[in-house]
Amino acid sequence: MIKEKFEENIKRIQNQIVSAFQLVDPEVKIIEDNWDRPGGGGGCSKILTKGKYIEKGGVNISIVNGVLPIEMQERLNAISASFYASGISLVIHPLNPFAPTVHFNIRYFELYKDSKLVDSWFGGGMDLTPFYPFVEDVIHFHTVLKNDCDRFDKTYYSDFKNQCDSYFYNAHRNEHRGIGGVFFDYLKPSKEKSIEHLFDFTISIGDSFIQAYIPIIEKRKDIIFNDSQREWQEIRRGRYVEFNLIHDRGTLFGLKTSGRTESILMSLPPRVRWEYNHHPEFGSEEEKLFEILKPKQWV
Amino acid sequence: MIKEKFEENIKRIQNQIVSAFQLVDPEVKIIEDNWDRPGGGGGCSKILTKGKYIEKGGVNISIVNGVLPIEMQERLNAISASFYASGISLVIHPLNPFAPTVHFNIRYFELYKDSKLVDSWFGGGMDLTPFYPFVEDVIHFHTVLKNDCDRFDKTYYSDFKNQCDSYFYNAHRNEHRGIGGVFFDYLKPSKEKSIEHLFDFTISIGDSFIQAYIPIIEKRKDIIFNDSQREWQEIRRGRYVEFNLIHDRGTLFGLKTSGRTESILMSLPPRVRWEYNHHPEFGSEEEKLFEILKPKQWV
Repeated sequence: MIKEKFEENIKRIQNQIVSAFQLVDPEVKIIEDNWDRPGGGGGCSKILTKGKYIEKGGVNISIVNGVLPIEMQERLNAISASFYASGISLVIHPLNPFAPTVHFNIRYFELYKDSKLVDSWFGGGMDLTPFYPFVEDVIHFHTVLKNDCDRFDKTYYSDFKNQCDSYFYNAHRNEHRGIGGVFFDYLKPSKEKSIEHLFDFTISIGDSFIQAYIPIIEKRKDIIFNDSQREWQEIRRGRYVEFNLIHDRGTLFGLKTSGRTESILMSLPPRVRWEYNHHPEFGSEEEKLFEILKPKQWV
Repeated sequence: MIKEKFEENIKRIQNQIVSAFQLVDPEVKIIEDNWDRPGGGGGCSKILTKGKYIEKGGVNISIVNGVLPIEMQERLNAISASFYASGISLVIHPLNPFAPTVHFNIRYFELYKDSKLVDSWFGGGMDLTPFYPFVEDVIHFHTVLKNDCDRFDKTYYSDFKNQCDSYFYNAHRNEHRGIGGVFFDYLKPSKEKSIEHLFDFTISIGDSFIQAYIPIIEKRKDIIFNDSQREWQEIRRGRYVEFNLIHDRGTLFGLKTSGRTESILMSLPPRVRWEYNHHPEFGSEEEKLFEILKPKQWV
Protein backbone atom coordinates (compact mmCIF):
# COMPACT_ATOMS: atom_id res chain seq x y z
CA MET A 1 0.00 0.00 0.00
CA ILE A 2 1.43 3.30 -1.14
CA LYS A 3 -0.17 5.29 1.69
CA GLU A 4 1.41 3.16 4.41
CA LYS A 5 4.79 3.20 2.68
CA PHE A 6 4.63 6.99 2.31
CA GLU A 7 3.70 7.41 5.98
CA GLU A 8 6.56 5.15 7.12
CA ASN A 9 8.98 7.16 5.02
CA ILE A 10 7.91 10.60 6.18
CA LYS A 11 8.12 9.43 9.81
CA ARG A 12 11.61 8.08 9.17
CA ILE A 13 12.63 11.32 7.44
CA GLN A 14 11.20 13.40 10.30
CA ASN A 15 13.27 11.46 12.83
CA GLN A 16 16.43 11.62 10.73
CA ILE A 17 16.09 15.35 10.17
CA VAL A 18 15.44 16.09 13.84
CA SER A 19 18.49 13.97 14.78
CA ALA A 20 20.61 15.80 12.22
CA PHE A 21 19.63 19.15 13.74
CA GLN A 22 20.37 17.86 17.24
CA LEU A 23 23.89 17.08 16.06
CA VAL A 24 24.20 20.58 14.58
CA ASP A 25 22.82 22.14 17.75
CA PRO A 26 22.92 19.94 20.87
CA GLU A 27 21.35 22.77 22.91
CA VAL A 28 18.18 23.02 20.82
CA LYS A 29 14.96 22.21 22.66
CA ILE A 30 12.51 19.81 20.99
CA ILE A 31 8.80 20.17 21.76
CA GLU A 32 6.76 17.25 20.50
CA ASP A 33 3.11 17.97 19.90
CA ASN A 34 0.80 15.15 18.79
CA TRP A 35 -2.59 16.27 17.61
CA ASP A 36 -5.84 14.85 16.26
CA ARG A 37 -7.90 16.34 13.48
CA PRO A 38 -11.61 16.37 14.40
CA GLY A 39 -12.58 15.41 10.83
CA GLY A 40 -10.13 12.49 10.68
CA GLY A 41 -6.45 11.78 11.18
CA GLY A 42 -3.86 13.85 12.97
CA GLY A 43 -0.23 14.73 13.09
CA CYS A 44 2.99 15.14 14.99
CA SER A 45 4.76 18.50 15.20
CA LYS A 46 8.34 18.56 16.39
CA ILE A 47 9.20 22.13 17.26
CA LEU A 48 12.87 23.15 17.55
CA THR A 49 13.39 26.20 19.69
CA LYS A 50 15.88 28.31 21.66
CA GLY A 51 18.97 26.52 20.42
CA LYS A 52 22.44 27.98 20.23
CA TYR A 53 22.20 27.93 16.42
CA ILE A 54 18.55 27.20 15.64
CA GLU A 55 16.42 30.07 16.85
CA LYS A 56 13.13 28.48 15.83
CA GLY A 57 11.88 25.79 13.51
CA GLY A 58 9.57 22.87 13.12
CA VAL A 59 9.37 19.51 11.40
CA ASN A 60 5.71 18.55 11.09
CA ILE A 61 4.01 15.39 9.93
CA SER A 62 0.33 15.28 9.13
CA ILE A 63 -1.74 12.30 8.00
CA VAL A 64 -5.33 13.36 7.55
CA ASN A 65 -8.44 12.13 5.80
CA GLY A 66 -12.18 12.72 5.65
CA VAL A 67 -14.74 14.66 3.74
CA LEU A 68 -13.13 17.09 1.33
CA PRO A 69 -13.33 20.60 2.87
CA ILE A 70 -15.50 22.97 0.86
CA GLU A 71 -12.56 25.21 -0.10
CA MET A 72 -10.81 22.15 -1.53
CA GLN A 73 -13.88 21.02 -3.46
CA GLU A 74 -13.77 24.24 -5.45
CA ARG A 75 -10.04 24.11 -6.02
CA LEU A 76 -10.05 20.47 -7.10
CA ASN A 77 -13.39 20.68 -8.86
CA ALA A 78 -14.58 17.64 -6.91
CA ILE A 79 -17.89 17.74 -5.09
CA SER A 80 -18.96 15.34 -2.30
CA ALA A 81 -15.65 13.53 -2.38
CA SER A 82 -13.42 12.30 0.40
CA PHE A 83 -9.67 12.63 0.61
CA TYR A 84 -6.46 11.39 2.16
CA ALA A 85 -3.38 13.58 2.53
CA SER A 86 -0.08 12.98 4.22
CA GLY A 87 3.10 14.96 4.26
CA ILE A 88 6.08 16.33 6.08
CA SER A 89 6.95 20.01 6.14
CA LEU A 90 9.82 21.90 7.68
CA VAL A 91 10.99 25.45 8.22
CA ILE A 92 14.23 26.28 10.06
CA HIS A 93 15.18 29.82 11.12
CA PRO A 94 18.84 29.84 12.22
CA LEU A 95 19.99 32.46 14.70
CA ASN A 96 23.06 33.43 12.68
CA PRO A 97 22.30 35.88 9.84
CA PHE A 98 24.97 34.17 7.72
CA ALA A 99 23.05 30.88 7.81
CA PRO A 100 20.03 30.82 5.48
CA THR A 101 16.45 29.98 6.42
CA VAL A 102 15.24 26.80 4.76
CA HIS A 103 11.86 25.32 3.85
CA PHE A 104 11.13 21.74 2.75
CA ASN A 105 7.99 19.70 2.16
CA ILE A 106 6.79 16.49 0.48
CA ARG A 107 3.19 15.31 0.33
CA TYR A 108 0.92 12.65 -1.12
CA PHE A 109 -2.77 13.12 -1.85
CA GLU A 110 -5.62 10.74 -2.75
CA LEU A 111 -9.15 11.67 -3.81
CA TYR A 112 -12.15 9.30 -3.58
CA LYS A 113 -15.67 9.26 -4.94
CA ASP A 114 -18.08 6.70 -3.49
CA SER A 115 -15.11 5.15 -1.66
CA LYS A 116 -13.34 4.56 -4.99
CA LEU A 117 -9.91 6.10 -5.63
CA VAL A 118 -10.37 8.57 -8.50
CA ASP A 119 -7.17 10.63 -8.36
CA SER A 120 -3.82 10.79 -6.59
CA TRP A 121 -0.68 12.87 -6.80
CA PHE A 122 2.61 13.86 -5.20
CA GLY A 123 3.99 17.29 -4.42
CA GLY A 124 6.97 18.78 -2.65
CA GLY A 125 10.17 20.74 -2.88
CA MET A 126 12.66 22.79 -0.91
CA ASP A 127 14.02 26.31 -1.12
CA LEU A 128 16.62 28.44 0.60
CA THR A 129 16.32 32.02 1.88
CA PRO A 130 19.70 33.62 2.61
CA PHE A 131 20.28 37.01 4.23
CA TYR A 132 24.03 37.21 3.50
CA PRO A 133 24.36 34.81 0.62
CA PHE A 134 27.43 32.73 -0.24
CA VAL A 135 27.47 31.73 -3.89
CA GLU A 136 29.11 28.41 -3.00
CA ASP A 137 26.19 27.58 -0.67
CA VAL A 138 23.68 28.36 -3.38
CA ILE A 139 25.56 26.18 -5.85
CA HIS A 140 25.84 23.36 -3.30
CA PHE A 141 22.10 23.44 -2.60
CA HIS A 142 21.14 23.43 -6.27
CA THR A 143 23.75 20.78 -7.14
CA VAL A 144 22.35 18.32 -4.60
CA LEU A 145 18.85 18.90 -5.97
CA LYS A 146 19.90 18.62 -9.60
CA ASN A 147 21.83 15.40 -9.00
CA ASP A 148 18.85 13.93 -7.24
CA CYS A 149 16.39 15.01 -9.94
CA ASP A 150 18.68 13.78 -12.75
CA ARG A 151 18.61 10.23 -11.36
CA PHE A 152 14.88 10.16 -12.14
CA ASP A 153 14.40 12.33 -15.20
CA LYS A 154 16.76 14.79 -16.90
CA THR A 155 13.90 17.29 -17.35
CA TYR A 156 12.86 17.38 -13.67
CA TYR A 157 15.45 19.77 -12.27
CA SER A 158 14.97 22.55 -14.75
CA ASP A 159 11.19 22.16 -14.73
CA PHE A 160 10.90 22.10 -10.93
CA LYS A 161 13.51 24.83 -10.43
CA ASN A 162 11.45 27.13 -12.67
CA GLN A 163 8.28 26.28 -10.78
CA CYS A 164 10.09 27.12 -7.54
CA ASP A 165 11.26 30.49 -8.87
CA SER A 166 7.72 31.35 -10.00
CA TYR A 167 6.07 30.23 -6.78
CA PHE A 168 8.26 31.79 -4.08
CA TYR A 169 7.85 35.32 -5.36
CA ASN A 170 6.72 38.41 -3.46
CA ALA A 171 4.78 40.02 -6.30
CA HIS A 172 3.97 43.11 -4.18
CA ARG A 173 7.72 43.80 -3.91
CA ASN A 174 8.78 42.41 -7.28
CA GLU A 175 11.28 40.27 -5.40
CA HIS A 176 11.91 36.52 -5.00
CA ARG A 177 11.73 35.09 -1.49
CA GLY A 178 15.07 33.37 -1.75
CA ILE A 179 17.43 31.69 -4.18
CA GLY A 180 14.95 28.96 -5.06
CA GLY A 181 15.41 25.23 -5.20
CA VAL A 182 12.76 22.88 -6.57
CA PHE A 183 8.97 22.84 -6.32
CA PHE A 184 6.54 20.33 -7.84
CA ASP A 185 2.84 19.61 -7.47
CA TYR A 186 0.12 17.40 -8.98
CA LEU A 187 2.69 14.79 -10.12
CA LYS A 188 0.36 12.05 -11.31
CA PRO A 189 1.11 8.58 -12.68
CA SER A 190 0.96 8.29 -16.48
CA LYS A 191 2.03 5.86 -19.20
CA GLU A 192 5.61 7.13 -18.92
CA LYS A 193 5.77 7.54 -15.16
CA SER A 194 4.56 4.80 -12.85
CA ILE A 195 3.33 5.63 -9.38
CA GLU A 196 6.41 3.81 -8.04
CA HIS A 197 8.66 6.15 -10.02
CA LEU A 198 6.89 9.21 -8.61
CA PHE A 199 6.89 7.76 -5.11
CA ASP A 200 10.62 7.02 -5.25
CA PHE A 201 11.37 10.47 -6.65
CA THR A 202 9.34 12.24 -3.97
CA ILE A 203 10.91 10.26 -1.12
CA SER A 204 14.31 10.81 -2.66
CA ILE A 205 13.77 14.59 -2.49
CA GLY A 206 12.93 14.07 1.16
CA ASP A 207 16.12 12.10 1.66
CA SER A 208 18.16 14.84 -0.01
CA PHE A 209 17.25 17.49 2.52
CA ILE A 210 19.98 16.65 5.01
CA GLN A 211 22.67 16.62 2.36
CA ALA A 212 21.37 19.83 0.77
CA TYR A 213 21.09 21.93 3.93
CA ILE A 214 23.09 20.59 6.89
CA PRO A 215 26.55 21.32 5.39
CA ILE A 216 25.46 24.94 4.85
CA ILE A 217 24.32 25.59 8.41
CA GLU A 218 27.42 23.74 9.73
CA LYS A 219 29.67 26.06 7.74
CA ARG A 220 27.92 29.30 8.72
CA LYS A 221 26.60 28.76 12.22
CA ASP A 222 29.68 30.11 14.04
CA ILE A 223 30.42 33.17 11.93
CA ILE A 224 30.70 36.22 14.20
CA PHE A 225 27.92 38.73 13.54
CA ASN A 226 27.00 42.16 14.91
CA ASP A 227 23.73 43.88 15.80
CA SER A 228 23.29 45.53 12.45
CA GLN A 229 23.69 42.21 10.63
CA ARG A 230 21.11 40.73 12.93
CA GLU A 231 18.85 43.71 12.15
CA TRP A 232 19.17 43.06 8.43
CA GLN A 233 18.23 39.41 9.01
CA GLU A 234 15.14 40.47 10.98
CA ILE A 235 14.09 42.94 8.29
CA ARG A 236 14.48 40.27 5.60
CA ARG A 237 12.51 37.84 7.74
CA GLY A 238 9.68 40.34 7.38
CA ARG A 239 9.63 39.49 3.66
CA TYR A 240 9.32 35.82 4.64
CA VAL A 241 6.26 36.64 6.78
CA GLU A 242 4.79 38.69 3.93
CA PHE A 243 5.17 35.81 1.48
CA ASN A 244 3.69 33.21 3.82
CA LEU A 245 0.69 35.31 4.88
CA ILE A 246 -0.11 37.10 1.61
CA HIS A 247 0.87 34.65 -1.13
CA ASP A 248 1.43 31.10 0.12
CA ARG A 249 -1.51 28.95 -0.98
CA GLY A 250 -0.66 26.22 1.54
CA THR A 251 -0.69 28.62 4.49
CA LEU A 252 -3.89 30.41 3.52
CA PHE A 253 -5.64 27.18 2.64
CA GLY A 254 -4.55 25.57 5.92
CA LEU A 255 -5.74 28.55 7.97
CA LYS A 256 -9.15 28.37 6.32
CA THR A 257 -9.65 24.62 6.64
CA SER A 258 -7.62 22.90 9.32
CA GLY A 259 -7.92 24.83 12.54
CA ARG A 260 -4.28 23.89 13.25
CA THR A 261 -3.25 27.54 13.27
CA GLU A 262 -0.18 26.99 15.43
CA SER A 263 1.16 24.11 13.30
CA ILE A 264 0.71 26.18 10.17
CA LEU A 265 2.18 29.38 11.56
CA MET A 266 5.19 27.57 13.05
CA SER A 267 6.77 28.64 9.74
CA LEU A 268 6.87 32.28 10.90
CA PRO A 269 10.23 33.57 12.12
CA PRO A 270 10.80 34.12 15.85
CA ARG A 271 11.84 37.79 15.67
CA VAL A 272 11.03 40.17 12.87
CA ARG A 273 11.34 43.87 12.07
CA TRP A 274 9.61 46.23 9.72
CA GLU A 275 11.23 49.60 9.01
CA TYR A 276 9.66 52.12 6.69
CA ASN A 277 11.22 52.05 3.23
CA HIS A 278 14.42 50.37 4.33
CA HIS A 279 17.11 50.19 1.63
CA PRO A 280 20.65 48.99 2.23
CA GLU A 281 23.47 51.27 1.16
CA PHE A 282 24.61 51.08 -2.42
CA GLY A 283 27.47 48.61 -2.73
CA SER A 284 27.01 47.20 0.79
CA GLU A 285 27.03 43.47 1.61
CA GLU A 286 23.30 43.76 2.28
CA GLU A 287 22.60 45.26 -1.10
CA LYS A 288 24.33 42.34 -2.86
CA LEU A 289 21.44 40.12 -1.77
CA PHE A 290 19.10 41.65 -4.36
CA GLU A 291 21.32 40.56 -7.24
CA ILE A 292 21.50 36.98 -5.99
CA LEU A 293 17.72 36.78 -5.52
CA LYS A 294 17.20 37.14 -9.28
CA PRO A 295 16.68 33.63 -10.70
CA LYS A 296 19.77 32.20 -12.40
CA GLN A 297 21.15 28.94 -13.78
CA TRP A 298 23.14 27.97 -10.68
CA VAL A 299 24.31 24.60 -12.00
CA MET B 1 -16.78 71.35 -4.10
CA ILE B 2 -16.88 68.44 -1.70
CA LYS B 3 -13.60 66.92 -2.96
CA GLU B 4 -11.62 70.10 -2.35
CA LYS B 5 -13.22 70.57 1.08
CA PHE B 6 -12.46 66.96 2.01
CA GLU B 7 -8.84 67.32 0.86
CA GLU B 8 -8.36 70.53 2.85
CA ASN B 9 -9.74 68.84 5.92
CA ILE B 10 -7.63 65.69 5.74
CA LYS B 11 -4.52 67.81 5.26
CA ARG B 12 -5.47 69.91 8.26
CA ILE B 13 -6.15 66.77 10.32
CA GLN B 14 -2.83 65.23 9.25
CA ASN B 15 -0.95 68.32 10.42
CA GLN B 16 -2.88 68.53 13.70
CA ILE B 17 -2.30 64.85 14.47
CA VAL B 18 1.41 65.00 13.70
CA SER B 19 1.73 68.09 15.91
CA ALA B 20 -0.14 66.34 18.70
CA PHE B 21 2.28 63.41 18.56
CA GLN B 22 5.25 65.76 18.54
CA LEU B 23 3.95 67.19 21.81
CA VAL B 24 3.56 63.67 23.24
CA ASP B 25 7.03 62.71 22.03
CA PRO B 26 9.37 65.62 21.20
CA GLU B 27 12.13 63.12 20.28
CA VAL B 28 10.16 61.39 17.53
CA LYS B 29 11.62 61.71 14.03
CA ILE B 30 9.28 62.71 11.21
CA ILE B 31 10.06 61.51 7.69
CA GLU B 32 7.96 63.23 5.05
CA ASP B 33 7.56 61.31 1.83
CA ASN B 34 5.64 62.90 -1.05
CA TRP B 35 4.78 60.55 -3.86
CA ASP B 36 3.01 60.52 -7.23
CA ARG B 37 0.75 57.78 -8.49
CA PRO B 38 1.58 56.92 -12.13
CA GLY B 39 -2.14 56.53 -12.97
CA GLY B 40 -3.09 59.89 -11.41
CA GLY B 41 -2.76 61.74 -8.13
CA GLY B 42 -0.39 61.09 -5.28
CA GLY B 43 0.04 61.42 -1.57
CA CYS B 44 2.03 62.50 1.42
CA SER B 45 3.24 60.02 4.02
CA LYS B 46 4.45 61.36 7.34
CA ILE B 47 6.34 58.58 9.07
CA LEU B 48 6.97 58.80 12.82
CA THR B 49 9.92 56.76 13.96
CA LYS B 50 12.48 56.12 16.72
CA GLY B 51 10.81 58.31 19.30
CA LYS B 52 11.10 57.96 23.04
CA TYR B 53 7.46 56.87 23.18
CA ILE B 54 6.43 56.23 19.57
CA GLU B 55 8.39 53.31 18.22
CA LYS B 56 6.89 53.53 14.73
CA GLY B 57 3.87 54.98 13.01
CA GLY B 58 2.61 56.86 10.04
CA VAL B 59 -0.02 59.40 9.09
CA ASN B 60 -0.67 59.11 5.36
CA ILE B 61 -2.72 61.19 2.98
CA SER B 62 -3.58 59.99 -0.49
CA ILE B 63 -5.56 61.80 -3.18
CA VAL B 64 -5.74 59.63 -6.27
CA ASN B 65 -7.82 59.35 -9.42
CA GLY B 66 -7.86 57.68 -12.81
CA VAL B 67 -9.18 54.62 -14.53
CA LEU B 68 -10.76 52.21 -12.07
CA PRO B 69 -8.25 49.36 -11.42
CA ILE B 70 -9.53 45.99 -12.67
CA GLU B 71 -9.73 44.55 -9.12
CA MET B 72 -11.96 47.47 -8.15
CA GLN B 73 -14.18 47.06 -11.20
CA GLU B 74 -15.18 43.62 -9.99
CA ARG B 75 -15.66 44.69 -6.41
CA LEU B 76 -17.76 47.71 -7.32
CA ASN B 77 -19.45 46.05 -10.28
CA ALA B 78 -18.48 49.02 -12.45
CA ILE B 79 -16.77 48.46 -15.76
CA SER B 80 -14.83 51.10 -17.71
CA ALA B 81 -15.38 53.70 -15.06
CA SER B 82 -13.05 56.24 -13.56
CA PHE B 83 -12.68 57.12 -9.91
CA TYR B 84 -11.50 59.62 -7.35
CA ALA B 85 -10.45 58.62 -3.83
CA SER B 86 -8.96 60.62 -1.02
CA GLY B 87 -8.28 59.76 2.56
CA ILE B 88 -6.08 59.87 5.61
CA SER B 89 -4.94 56.77 7.45
CA LEU B 90 -2.87 56.32 10.55
CA VAL B 91 -1.30 53.57 12.61
CA ILE B 92 0.77 54.27 15.74
CA HIS B 93 2.83 51.61 17.54
CA PRO B 94 3.94 52.96 20.91
CA LEU B 95 7.10 51.58 22.49
CA ASN B 96 5.49 51.04 25.90
CA PRO B 97 3.48 47.80 26.15
CA PHE B 98 1.00 49.58 28.45
CA ALA B 99 0.10 52.04 25.67
CA PRO B 100 -2.19 50.56 23.00
CA THR B 101 -1.59 50.53 19.27
CA VAL B 102 -4.14 52.63 17.38
CA HIS B 103 -5.49 52.74 13.84
CA PHE B 104 -7.61 55.50 12.26
CA ASN B 105 -8.83 56.28 8.76
CA ILE B 106 -11.38 58.40 6.89
CA ARG B 107 -11.94 58.38 3.15
CA TYR B 108 -14.15 59.75 0.38
CA PHE B 109 -14.77 58.04 -2.94
CA GLU B 110 -16.35 59.13 -6.24
CA LEU B 111 -17.17 56.95 -9.24
CA TYR B 112 -17.71 58.30 -12.78
CA LYS B 113 -19.06 56.95 -16.02
CA ASP B 114 -18.46 58.98 -19.16
CA SER B 115 -17.10 61.75 -16.90
CA LYS B 116 -20.44 61.92 -15.07
CA LEU B 117 -20.55 61.32 -11.31
CA VAL B 118 -22.61 58.15 -10.78
CA ASP B 119 -21.81 57.25 -7.18
CA SER B 120 -20.00 58.56 -4.10
CA TRP B 121 -19.53 57.49 -0.51
CA PHE B 122 -17.67 58.03 2.75
CA GLY B 123 -15.90 55.51 4.94
CA GLY B 124 -13.71 55.48 8.01
CA GLY B 125 -13.30 54.59 11.62
CA MET B 126 -10.77 53.97 14.36
CA ASP B 127 -9.93 51.09 16.66
CA LEU B 128 -7.61 50.39 19.58
CA THR B 129 -5.36 47.37 20.17
CA PRO B 130 -4.13 47.13 23.76
CA PHE B 131 -1.58 44.62 25.11
CA TYR B 132 -2.14 45.35 28.81
CA PRO B 133 -5.62 46.88 28.74
CA PHE B 134 -6.99 49.44 31.18
CA VAL B 135 -10.79 49.37 31.31
CA GLU B 136 -10.86 53.13 31.87
CA ASP B 137 -8.94 53.67 28.61
CA VAL B 138 -11.33 51.44 26.68
CA ILE B 139 -14.31 53.33 28.12
CA HIS B 140 -12.69 56.70 27.36
CA PHE B 141 -12.06 55.70 23.73
CA HIS B 142 -15.60 54.43 23.19
CA THR B 143 -17.15 57.38 25.03
CA VAL B 144 -15.46 59.91 22.76
CA LEU B 145 -16.65 57.97 19.71
CA LYS B 146 -20.19 57.54 21.00
CA ASN B 147 -20.52 61.22 21.90
CA ASP B 148 -19.32 62.17 18.46
CA CYS B 149 -21.64 59.72 16.68
CA ASP B 150 -24.64 60.75 18.81
CA ARG B 151 -24.34 64.35 17.63
CA PHE B 152 -25.17 63.12 14.12
CA ASP B 153 -27.47 60.14 14.57
CA LYS B 154 -28.34 58.13 17.66
CA THR B 155 -28.09 54.86 15.69
CA TYR B 156 -24.56 55.49 14.36
CA TYR B 157 -22.48 54.45 17.35
CA SER B 158 -24.04 51.07 17.91
CA ASP B 159 -24.18 50.31 14.19
CA PHE B 160 -20.58 51.33 13.51
CA LYS B 161 -19.27 49.74 16.71
CA ASN B 162 -20.77 46.41 15.61
CA GLN B 163 -19.25 46.76 12.16
CA CYS B 164 -15.88 47.43 13.78
CA ASP B 165 -16.15 44.32 15.98
CA SER B 166 -17.02 42.19 12.96
CA TYR B 167 -14.31 43.58 10.75
CA PHE B 168 -11.22 43.55 13.01
CA TYR B 169 -11.43 39.86 13.72
CA ASN B 170 -8.71 37.21 13.31
CA ALA B 171 -10.99 34.37 12.18
CA HIS B 172 -8.08 31.90 12.06
CA ARG B 173 -7.56 32.45 15.80
CA ASN B 174 -11.16 33.11 16.76
CA GLU B 175 -9.97 36.33 18.38
CA HIS B 176 -10.67 40.04 17.90
CA ARG B 177 -7.73 42.27 16.97
CA GLY B 178 -8.43 44.77 19.70
CA ILE B 179 -11.21 46.33 21.73
CA GLY B 180 -12.90 47.85 18.69
CA GLY B 181 -14.12 51.38 18.10
CA VAL B 182 -16.16 52.38 15.06
CA PHE B 183 -15.99 51.36 11.41
CA PHE B 184 -18.22 52.53 8.55
CA ASP B 185 -18.15 52.21 4.79
CA TYR B 186 -20.30 53.00 1.72
CA LEU B 187 -22.09 55.84 3.57
CA LYS B 188 -24.08 57.35 0.71
CA PRO B 189 -26.38 60.37 0.61
CA SER B 190 -30.10 59.58 0.76
CA LYS B 191 -33.38 61.38 1.38
CA GLU B 192 -32.69 61.31 5.12
CA LYS B 193 -28.97 62.03 4.99
CA SER B 194 -27.58 64.82 2.87
CA ILE B 195 -24.05 64.62 1.56
CA GLU B 196 -23.26 67.56 3.85
CA HIS B 197 -24.41 65.55 6.87
CA LEU B 198 -22.21 62.59 5.87
CA PHE B 199 -19.29 64.88 5.12
CA ASP B 200 -19.58 66.63 8.49
CA PHE B 201 -19.89 63.31 10.30
CA THR B 202 -16.83 61.81 8.59
CA ILE B 203 -14.68 64.87 9.25
CA SER B 204 -15.95 64.94 12.80
CA ILE B 205 -14.68 61.37 13.33
CA GLY B 206 -11.33 62.59 12.01
CA ASP B 207 -11.39 65.47 14.44
CA SER B 208 -12.17 63.10 17.33
CA PHE B 209 -8.97 61.11 16.94
CA ILE B 210 -6.79 63.38 19.06
CA GLN B 211 -9.31 63.48 21.88
CA ALA B 212 -9.89 59.72 21.70
CA TYR B 213 -6.26 58.58 21.71
CA ILE B 214 -3.81 61.22 22.95
CA PRO B 215 -4.97 61.16 26.60
CA ILE B 216 -4.44 57.38 26.62
CA ILE B 217 -0.85 57.43 25.37
CA GLU B 218 -0.10 60.39 27.67
CA LYS B 219 -1.31 58.40 30.68
CA ARG B 220 0.57 55.18 29.81
CA LYS B 221 3.74 56.26 28.04
CA ASP B 222 5.92 56.44 31.17
CA ILE B 223 4.81 53.27 32.95
CA ILE B 224 7.88 51.18 33.83
CA PHE B 225 7.95 47.88 31.94
CA ASN B 226 10.25 44.86 31.89
CA ASP B 227 11.56 42.57 29.15
CA SER B 228 8.84 39.98 29.52
CA GLN B 229 6.12 42.63 29.16
CA ARG B 230 7.85 43.87 26.05
CA GLU B 231 7.94 40.26 24.78
CA TRP B 232 4.20 39.91 25.30
CA GLN B 233 3.67 43.13 23.33
CA GLU B 234 5.82 41.79 20.47
CA ILE B 235 3.95 38.48 20.42
CA ARG B 236 0.61 40.30 20.32
CA ARG B 237 1.91 42.55 17.56
CA GLY B 238 2.26 39.30 15.58
CA ARG B 239 -1.54 39.05 15.67
CA TYR B 240 -1.69 42.58 14.26
CA VAL B 241 0.54 41.51 11.35
CA GLU B 242 -1.59 38.42 10.80
CA PHE B 243 -4.77 40.50 10.61
CA ASN B 244 -3.32 43.08 8.24
CA LEU B 245 -1.74 40.57 5.85
CA ILE B 246 -4.37 37.80 5.92
CA HIS B 247 -7.69 39.56 6.45
CA ASP B 248 -7.53 43.32 5.88
CA ARG B 249 -9.27 44.13 2.59
CA GLY B 250 -7.63 47.55 2.36
CA THR B 251 -4.10 46.17 2.71
CA LEU B 252 -4.57 43.32 0.24
CA PHE B 253 -6.38 45.53 -2.22
CA GLY B 254 -3.70 48.20 -1.98
CA LEU B 255 -0.88 45.71 -2.50
CA LYS B 256 -2.57 44.42 -5.63
CA THR B 257 -3.39 47.78 -7.17
CA SER B 258 -1.31 50.69 -6.00
CA GLY B 259 2.34 49.74 -6.07
CA ARG B 260 2.81 51.86 -2.92
CA THR B 261 3.92 48.83 -0.92
CA GLU B 262 5.87 50.86 1.64
CA SER B 263 3.01 53.28 2.34
CA ILE B 264 0.62 50.39 2.80
CA LEU B 265 2.91 48.28 4.96
CA MET B 266 3.86 51.23 7.18
CA SER B 267 1.03 49.81 9.31
CA LEU B 268 3.21 46.82 10.30
CA PRO B 269 4.80 46.97 13.76
CA PRO B 270 8.54 47.68 14.08
CA ARG B 271 9.47 44.58 16.11
CA VAL B 272 7.47 41.38 16.27
CA ARG B 273 7.81 37.86 17.67
CA TRP B 274 6.24 34.53 16.90
CA GLU B 275 6.58 31.74 19.46
CA TYR B 276 5.06 28.32 18.91
CA ASN B 277 1.76 27.88 20.71
CA HIS B 278 2.37 30.67 23.21
CA HIS B 279 -0.23 30.89 25.99
CA PRO B 280 0.05 33.22 28.96
CA GLU B 281 -0.27 31.67 32.40
CA PHE B 282 -3.74 31.19 33.80
CA GLY B 283 -4.72 34.21 35.88
CA SER B 284 -1.78 36.34 34.70
CA GLU B 285 -2.08 39.97 33.61
CA GLU B 286 -1.41 38.80 30.05
CA GLU B 287 -4.22 36.28 30.12
CA LYS B 288 -6.72 39.00 31.14
CA LEU B 289 -6.36 40.47 27.67
CA PHE B 290 -8.44 37.67 26.11
CA GLU B 291 -11.47 38.53 28.23
CA ILE B 292 -11.33 42.20 27.28
CA LEU B 293 -11.01 41.40 23.57
CA LYS B 294 -14.49 39.88 23.54
CA PRO B 295 -16.90 42.55 22.21
CA LYS B 296 -18.90 44.30 24.94
CA GLN B 297 -21.13 47.31 25.48
CA TRP B 298 -18.45 49.63 26.80
CA VAL B 299 -20.67 52.71 27.11
